[in-house]
Amino acid sequence: MATHKVTLLPADQTVEVPTGSLVAEAIQRAGLEIAQPCGGQGRCGRCAVFVQGEGARRRSTIRLSADDLTSGFALACQTVVEGDLVVTIPEQERIERRLVTDKTARAIELPFPYDPANQGIRAFRLYLAEPSLQDNRDDQARLELALAAVGYPQVEVPLDLVRRMGQVLRECEWSPWVVLETPPPGRPHAAARLIDLAQDPIEPVAVAIDIGTTTVSAYLVDLASGEVLGSSAEYNGQIQFGEDVISRIIYAARNGGLTELSRRVLGTLEEVLARLHKRTGIDPQRIYKATVAGNTTMLHLLLGLPPGTIRLAPYIPTVNLPAPVRAHEIGLGIHPLATVDCLPGVASYVGSDITAGVLACGLSETEELTLFIDVGTNGEIVLGTRDWQVACACSAGPAFEGAGVVHGMRATEGAIEEVWVHTRTYEPTWRVVGNVAPRGLCGSGLISLLAELFVTGVIDRGGNVKLDLDTPRVRQGEHGPEYVVAWASETSTGKDLVLTKVDVDNLLRAKAAIYAGFSVLAGSVGVRLEDVQQVLVGGSFGKYINVEKAIQIGLLPDLPWERFKFLGNTAILGTYYALLSHSERERLQHIARSMTYLELSADNTFYDAFTAALFLPHTEIVRFPSVASIWEGEAGKPSPRQAG
Amino acid sequence: MATHKVTLLPADQTVEVPTGSLVAEAIQRAGLEIAQPCGGQGRCGRCAVFVQGEGARRRSTIRLSADDLTSGFALACQTVVEGDLVVTIPEQERIERRLVTDKTARAIELPFPYDPANQGIRAFRLYLAEPSLQDNRDDQARLELALAAVGYPQVEVPLDLVRRMGQVLRECEWSPWVVLETPPPGRPHAAARLIDLAQDPIEPVAVAIDIGTTTVSAYLVDLASGEVLGSSAEYNGQIQFGEDVISRIIYAARNGGLTELSRRVLGTLEEVLARLHKRTGIDPQRIYKATVAGNTTMLHLLLGLPPGTIRLAPYIPTVNLPAPVRAHEIGLGIHPLATVDCLPGVASYVGSDITAGVLACGLSETEELTLFIDVGTNGEIVLGTRDWQVACACSAGPAFEGAGVVHGMRATEGAIEEVWVHTRTYEPTWRVVGNVAPRGLCGSGLISLLAELFVTGVIDRGGNVKLDLDTPRVRQGEHGPEYVVAWASETSTGKDLVLTKVDVDNLLRAKAAIYAGFSVLAGSVGVRLEDVQQVLVGGSFGKYINVEKAIQIGLLPDLPWERFKFLGNTAILGTYYALLSHSERERLQHIARSMTYLELSADNTFYDAFTAALFLPHTEIVRFPSVASIWEGEAGKPSPRQAG
Repeated sequence: MATHKVTLLPADQTVEVPTGSLVAEAIQRAGLEIAQPCGGQGRCGRCAVFVQGEGARRRSTIRLSADDLTSGFALACQTVVEGDLVVTIPEQERIERRLVTDKTARAIELPFPYDPANQGIRAFRLYLAEPSLQDNRDDQARLELALAAVGYPQVEVPLDLVRRMGQVLRECEWSPWVVLETPPPGRPHAAARLIDLAQDPIEPVAVAIDIGTTTVSAYLVDLASGEVLGSSAEYNGQIQFGEDVISRIIYAARNGGLTELSRRVLGTLEEVLARLHKRTGIDPQRIYKATVAGNTTMLHLLLGLPPGTIRLAPYIPTVNLPAPVRAHEIGLGIHPLATVDCLPGVASYVGSDITAGVLACGLSETEELTLFIDVGTNGEIVLGTRDWQVACACSAGPAFEGAGVVHGMRATEGAIEEVWVHTRTYEPTWRVVGNVAPRGLCGSGLISLLAELFVTGVIDRGGNVKLDLDTPRVRQGEHGPEYVVAWASETSTGKDLVLTKVDVDNLLRAKAAIYAGFSVLAGSVGVRLEDVQQVLVGGSFGKYINVEKAIQIGLLPDLPWERFKFLGNTAILGTYYALLSHSERERLQHIARSMTYLELSADNTFYDAFTAALFLPHTEIVRFPSVASIWEGEAGKPSPRQAG
Repeated sequence: MATHKVTLLPADQTVEVPTGSLVAEAIQRAGLEIAQPCGGQGRCGRCAVFVQGEGARRRSTIRLSADDLTSGFALACQTVVEGDLVVTIPEQERIERRLVTDKTARAIELPFPYDPANQGIRAFRLYLAEPSLQDNRDDQARLELALAAVGYPQVEVPLDLVRRMGQVLRECEWSPWVVLETPPPGRPHAAARLIDLAQDPIEPVAVAIDIGTTTVSAYLVDLASGEVLGSSAEYNGQIQFGEDVISRIIYAARNGGLTELSRRVLGTLEEVLARLHKRTGIDPQRIYKATVAGNTTMLHLLLGLPPGTIRLAPYIPTVNLPAPVRAHEIGLGIHPLATVDCLPGVASYVGSDITAGVLACGLSETEELTLFIDVGTNGEIVLGTRDWQVACACSAGPAFEGAGVVHGMRATEGAIEEVWVHTRTYEPTWRVVGNVAPRGLCGSGLISLLAELFVTGVIDRGGNVKLDLDTPRVRQGEHGPEYVVAWASETSTGKDLVLTKVDVDNLLRAKAAIYAGFSVLAGSVGVRLEDVQQVLVGGSFGKYINVEKAIQIGLLPDLPWERFKFLGNTAILGTYYALLSHSERERLQHIARSMTYLELSADNTFYDAFTAALFLPHTEIVRFPSVASIWEGEAGKPSPRQAG
């Protein structure tokens, strides 16, 4: 049998292997290590290597993108040696980072050139005429004259600033720094508004906020460059009063409930801003504008609007297009006169997190039939093109945000974000955010784990843990059957990290609601799911989602992988765009006004679709041909797809 | 000697008297009574009778107007019988009321026809489409649509109302009453503003407020009819922190001083409004607009603006033309979303009490050279015509408002408003507001008393009480020399009611400041006082002022009486006009912007003029020919003018 030389870099060792050997075998023969957490099934992508030479035949390229392949990457466990090769084994960490970055994570960048003049906050110095007995005009007239001279003939001055004006103007010797909010272009009759007046130079910043039912996120934005100076997220402090919007609405109807919920989310925002303050050195008092997205209930609670009517037919919110308010009116801990611009939503269950998401994902600008899914606590779904959009919402629950799951957590340090389970031993391997000992599972980790447990047969299609498997990983736990992801000795908590049957049920309900949502939505406009040209996935954890695994559990429709794009938190991204650009803000307004809303609770087909989707991947497995192929083997014991 | 028949009505007695007898003597001969509190000097006008027949020769007609004379009135003590006469003696009370009404008091009426559409507050019922699953627009969109349908396409809705909207709209079954503030005509791009939203019908009222340094006055105004539903006044609760604006400004600079002063005036307004509530049954929460006049310092304190710079050269206020604020922003106890429109002033010492006064008195519309004097705590003076106006202010102090005088009080029940002192006995007679036992002296009473004491020789030209007179009325009191106006047995307080030397000095300083003010003002524009065609006197007590007596003490220039008009509180009158009419409000703005301000403290001639005016009536008595004529007799003992 012919042999071939395989040179391994950076170790610079060369081994001879017979034709047909796997690259992974060549590496092992050289005494080098390469991780194969999935047991060499080609499912985890962790054995990706860089291959030079003609003698490599890739049997499977799961987990590698077209770009990866073009660049020369191959999976060591799925690539056969048929000639001489030079194989570079990347640092394990480098692979991870590359995969994460390329496939999912992106730097926060604007899709348009930033023009400070196309947003509403200006800071500059004014030069006023000094008063005398001959020129005894009052302070405010003097200030207004100076503002008119630089192009602002109409400026509203809030009473608080009138109160401070006399002292500031004299302390700065009639050359104050001012912060002005200017109206959007095309409104020549609208007045500008003075937000601040100070002796010292002011470098205004702004904040883009996404208030999710589970997670509150914020970008601190430099208004000079448009850059994100820092971002932070925290669980919404309202969670203890209910995990989903319905329980919050019910709590808000209690005596003092609304006030308490408002207070909580403001407290969460305070924490987030304090953390950004610590990290960037920027005092929240320097924040002169907040643009806020959130589902309709979250914005009602932020603004102190009773949300009760959202819950009851005909599901009418107080307002979908809230007028801007001042920070002090709602008690938001930024500059008290800062404008808080709550972005426009569509209906009670399609809020501005979705309209901002649509803005960010580009659905409203494309000719392609696009499905946009925001996998938050509420799964909201938009289907359409630049010419039309329909939207619906399905109460997915917070499982994918790490809440409602025993060891769920947000995607912060210590969160398992991807898991591989060995096909034969059922032993897991994981990747942890921050590369530390694991503390819990974030949304992408949960999807990954659920899929791995399913395809390795640890759980069945109904989500039941198979306790008869020959591994200590499955056991009857305190809360019923469970799978141990990490032993106490491996975790940062000192306790076993598990996924319970109850967790699995919660995850199944969440994914079923989302799947039912987009299938009913497609049906309502007579579109087949397979005609969807792109699927854009948002949501705070969507950035790290693994499409293969999301399809395996039936969360996403079974379409070719290249049609999926994972965009992360599109709500805050769109909010960031709207904050920095009058025209993006107007586009968002247009999206909110023109989108058609489908009320699922008024649609009988939804409940049937939901029930059918409660299985893995779905009751009708024909809807998931790629997953069905795994099931060609013995029932309950899948044979890995495309295994050589 | 010929005799004549004098028939006296309503007693219907006839007496025969010799030619040359006084009517007063005929009355006494018939055994009837007629009051002659001034001792028959023709000074008090209290013996006015109605005379029919040709045989009456009026020697003096002091205290009678041209109208009075035409109607047939004559002074019994100054009218000689030269033929048969029929004399009707009016009820004493009727005379008083008639005199007060004709000469001074007027019903509060608008000088223009009231058009509810020419002011900014509207209340009406709206009919909204009820929501359904098919029409799931949000509450606010529904409300805005209904407003647009009745002509208000742009309406700002304050957050407080958005917060209550859901409940109200459902309680009223989608037919709410709304209160709207609409922009003035000629501002088509300005938005209207929603002020209230309720299930029950709303009849909006408004309030016109004059914040004087000493007295705070308010008119409660029905916005349907434009009528004044009630008026009330109270001492400004800030008085205990200083009687004039300067001491208030100094107090405001203390730690917490500004807050305390704001709180005080708001407390006073609360009292005034509570009294109006009690009297009219109208809850202050139904007040949807407040239009406020006041001197610049008072408005700074109301708005919470530090007034410190008003006091120091170059005397610059924070603002002369304050933007409207919402009642809740300053803590004014009316509807929290009501607009508080603080009227525009001219300079630190010529505030909107004066611009409103100029509006009310008609100076800005007349071709006649007009002197407008507002005799409040600060004597403010405007000279001009419709083409030009100059203004100045002189710190008169609060003496004429009853403060700074031991037994001073406002012109409420129990206040002596006019006094006559008998030429020979020095016994006083008085008229008391409400016709009850006296409690104190109001401004007009003080002027009257000062003049009487002067012309009867109880005090000398320097204001010293002549203790050597043969009457128990003059005495050395606890605080120096004093004159007893009423004995303890006659007063409602059970104590002697006195005017002390210190009181006299305060009154002299007040009148000297005012006289110096208008003489310097006239000089500054090269106008002679005697060319002034009308003198319009405002001020809260100006309605009851006695021109003869005001000239006698040198408070007013010695001009023919018919040139004087006493207009009362012109500040609140102009405020009332501006409240009810967009065009009056605009006229007032124009007055404020076009008036020229003369800073007396930058004018060296003022102090000299003030010092010269500290005498009765003035150091240069030649300036007061009519008073000089009284002094033709022996020095220190005036001979009454025109006595027969």
